[in-house]
Amino acid sequence: MADPRFFDNHGPFTLARLAELSGAALAEDSDPERLIRDIGPLESAGADELSFLDNKAYLDEFRTSAAGACVVAGRYRDQAPQGMALLLSEQPYKVYARIAQAFYPLPEIRSGIAPSARVAEDAKIGAGSELGANVVVGPRSEIGRDCLLEANVVIGAGVIIGDNCRLHAGVVVSHSIIGDRVVLFPGAKIGQDGFGFAIDPAGHVRVPQVGRVRIGDDCVIGANSTIDRGHVRDTVIGSGCWIDNLVQIGHNVELGRGCIIVALAGISGSTKLGNLVALGGQAGVAGHLQIGDGAQIGAQSGVMNDVPGGARVVGSPAQPAAEFFRQVAVLRRLAGRRSSKE
Amino acid sequence: MADPRFFDNHGPFTLARLAELSGAALAEDSDPERLIRDIGPLESAGADELSFLDNKAYLDEFRTSAAGACVVAGRYRDQAPQGMALLLSEQPYKVYARIAQAFYPLPEIRSGIAPSARVAEDAKIGAGSELGANVVVGPRSEIGRDCLLEANVVIGAGVIIGDNCRLHAGVVVSHSIIGDRVVLFPGAKIGQDGFGFAIDPAGHVRVPQVGRVRIGDDCVIGANSTIDRGHVRDTVIGSGCWIDNLVQIGHNVELGRGCIIVALAGISGSTKLGNLVALGGQAGVAGHLQIGDGAQIGAQSGVMNDVPGGARVVGSPAQPAAEFFRQVAVLRRLAGRRSSKE
Amino acid sequence: MADPRFFDNHGPFTLARLAELSGAALAEDSDPERLIRDIGPLESAGADELSFLDNKAYLDEFRTSAAGACVVAGRYRDQAPQGMALLLSEQPYKVYARIAQAFYPLPEIRSGIAPSARVAEDAKIGAGSELGANVVVGPRSEIGRDCLLEANVVIGAGVIIGDNCRLHAGVVVSHSIIGDRVVLFPGAKIGQDGFGFAIDPAGHVRVPQVGRVRIGDDCVIGANSTIDRGHVRDTVIGSGCWIDNLVQIGHNVELGRGCIIVALAGISGSTKLGNLVALGGQAGVAGHLQIGDGAQIGAQSGVMNDVPGGARVVGSPAQPAAEFFRQVAVLRRLAGRRSSKE
Repeated sequence: MADPRFFDNHGPFTLARLAELSGAALAEDSDPERLIRDIGPLESAGADELSFLDNKAYLDEFRTSAAGACVVAGRYRDQAPQGMALLLSEQPYKVYARIAQAFYPLPEIRSGIAPSARVAEDAKIGAGSELGANVVVGPRSEIGRDCLLEANVVIGAGVIIGDNCRLHAGVVVSHSIIGDRVVLFPGAKIGQDGFGFAIDPAGHVRVPQVGRVRIGDDCVIGANSTIDRGHVRDTVIGSGCWIDNLVQIGHNVELGRGCIIVALAGISGSTKLGNLVALGGQAGVAGHLQIGDGAQIGAQSGVMNDVPGGARVVGSPAQPAAEFFRQVAVLRRLAGRRSSKE
Repeated sequence: MADPRFFDNHGPFTLARLAELSGAALAEDSDPERLIRDIGPLESAGADELSFLDNKAYLDEFRTSAAGACVVAGRYRDQAPQGMALLLSEQPYKVYARIAQAFYPLPEIRSGIAPSARVAEDAKIGAGSELGANVVVGPRSEIGRDCLLEANVVIGAGVIIGDNCRLHAGVVVSHSIIGDRVVLFPGAKIGQDGFGFAIDPAGHVRVPQVGRVRIGDDCVIGANSTIDRGHVRDTVIGSGCWIDNLVQIGHNVELGRGCIIVALAGISGSTKLGNLVALGGQAGVAGHLQIGDGAQIGAQSGVMNDVPGGARVVGSPAQPAAEFFRQVAVLRRLAGRRSSKE
Repeated sequence: MADPRFFDNHGPFTLARLAELSGAALAEDSDPERLIRDIGPLESAGADELSFLDNKAYLDEFRTSAAGACVVAGRYRDQAPQGMALLLSEQPYKVYARIAQAFYPLPEIRSGIAPSARVAEDAKIGAGSELGANVVVGPRSEIGRDCLLEANVVIGAGVIIGDNCRLHAGVVVSHSIIGDRVVLFPGAKIGQDGFGFAIDPAGHVRVPQVGRVRIGDDCVIGANSTIDRGHVRDTVIGSGCWIDNLVQIGHNVELGRGCIIVALAGISGSTKLGNLVALGGQAGVAGHLQIGDGAQIGAQSGVMNDVPGGARVVGSPAQPAAEFFRQVAVLRRLAGRRSSKE
């Protein structure tokens, strides 16, 4: 059960309501009026709680779960314990996500500007927005409607932020234009200078960075991640991208729609990712490359060349996943043989 | 000598006193009344300063050091330069640490709340605690006794922090329960949402994160590190863990007691570490794994499978250290031979 | 064209003036009185804009560019499109950098201290410096002339900062002495404790960190990067170093002059880099090593041994670049052959 110190449970809901709001089908032998009071993990959820099975590694937990209801794919329904109500879907995690959002919607935004916030006279704050303690909004910036700027957020001059955005504590944004429903987690830094200079042994020479950062709608940027503004182009984050904590996005980088970038990954300057590209944790991509739609870059990979759409690459330097794992196996065999001879 | 702009030296101490407070044995030919005024490195410490030898790579510096006293293991005592007083211990670095703490204890906390701090009416601040400029403490939060919250720290709603904690400038904490004597270095971000969503090409669907972060006693979290709260479980940091700068800890991760996580390492969601696990710099651990007590994960390793207790693994993908280095050697030989044939 | 919401264009300039201020030679058939109004990328710059060619991968864009002027090396001048004015230099990017600085100088600093800034009574703020909202400057600190401290910067006690420095929003500095013209990007954390403790299963023992951070002149430190202070020595960043975002510099590390450290790289305690060393993104260097002048450490490399001056190393563990790539090739061939036999 979520700790009520931190979370407000908006339940209970009937199974019928949960099926409806999530798009799942209620199994015919499940009681549509049964009340579900919370979500919970398979191994600890109780008779009035709902869980989900999305990864068959957890099948054992599913078979023995005491959860009152579970979201599950049709092929596993026969393995459900007796008495468990079932919500059937071929996308159980997505269904579960919608149900969890019903129980725990985003906290409400309380319209108002804290007395200690410093908003420039010519900045615009949309109706319904909340600015916390010590928030700073620079000249000519425009914040949309129903936004939350938590304590100690700093917005530079001229920044535009759309509606329904949530900027958590300690976020800093400058030189950026941001869409609607964007979430910036604590300490994300958006819009500072790119790492641009001409190398010179007598003293590297700074190259002014006069592009912007443009972030589409529905993006999420993780805690303490950094996105540099472009040099003369823009750095672009397409709509629907999810970027984890401590990620570095260099100047002029462009991400298509729906990309997923896991923690501690870095993308060097001027590289372009297509739509729905996934970058594993601690992966790195060199500069000036093209990564095609739907490409998957494994964790800790080091990408030194273009990657075609749909490809899956691993390793440093990165190569097709099948080749990489074959090489790992060959080297293991060689070293094993050699060591048994020695 | 430590710069008095920044540090207050609480010495001098007699050798007898230093032996007593540190648990070392004073060598019989060393004068217990000799006064030691400071600590210093072997190569520059003077006649009234104390140094230590912990790493035999520094034996030459030890033999020629002008330090007035040195903490050293018994087996090296014969190599000490003439006139150097010796504190003998088989754990010289630990002994040195205690002595250094005597000279330079943590700065005193000056009870009081800065006028610019914003503390919610129903938050509780323990006796003796110091809140710096612009600190924000949210509703219902509880800060223990004798804590230091430096300037611009932001504490969300409902957070519990124990006694004698030090939160340095720019730290943000939400959705967390923290023990006693915990140190959070500048910019650490604790308790934000985990990276949880159902992948959907039409728009990834957010999964609410309704767990917490629980941190035990005596933990240290480095500058700009990030610890996400759990999804329906908690993210747990066991007592006595030391986490370096720029480390990412994903949702639902559990660390046992006394783990050491070096800078830029990342641990993916739901992975569990036992007690006294060490993770080298830039190492990564995939999600849903078990890492046994005392396992050692080399720097830059990429762990894709469970690691048994006591094992030492290296490489990406990680494997037993001996195998990894054998493979490195085999590949070097093969490439060398091939290149000499070509 | 740079967005005027964010950037003030100080042009136009004649070609003669741009040649003069940048040290380039104006080609004899280019009109010295021609007015250039902005900088822009080769593929989109117009007739009154200037671009540059520094990387022959962009030769096609150069040949077909509509830019009115271009900085280029003499050997490519014959390939310029008709009507393009040419500024000739063997260091075109450096020339371009100077021209770009003329169009877009650093924003002016507006002398003054925001009413919400908290400056200790015995701190000194140099003439012409600007302190933004909620800036905190601790006791006995000294800020030089013409510095910019953006909103929510926190300076601890005793810190010394030179002239013409720019500390962006959310920077935290303690226990440090910083030179002139240093830029700290948002969220950089300078001077916190190094990661120092004696390992003990019963509870690791903190080792006080009583050194400082010393940063020379003309350094740049990236967003959310962290530089720990030394233990009993200082951590030293030589003049002219450029450090990217999310970089970790451990205690006692010393960097020579003009080093370049790319994002997400980490340098462990007590390692010394010579002058002009370059560390690629996500590279790591173990502790207590010596890296010679001009060494180049490839992205994602893991350096476990000293590196001689001028060497170029790659891989984890790092080795000479030629050997590394030979090994990659050998392993690929072996795995390919084996898989075709199987």
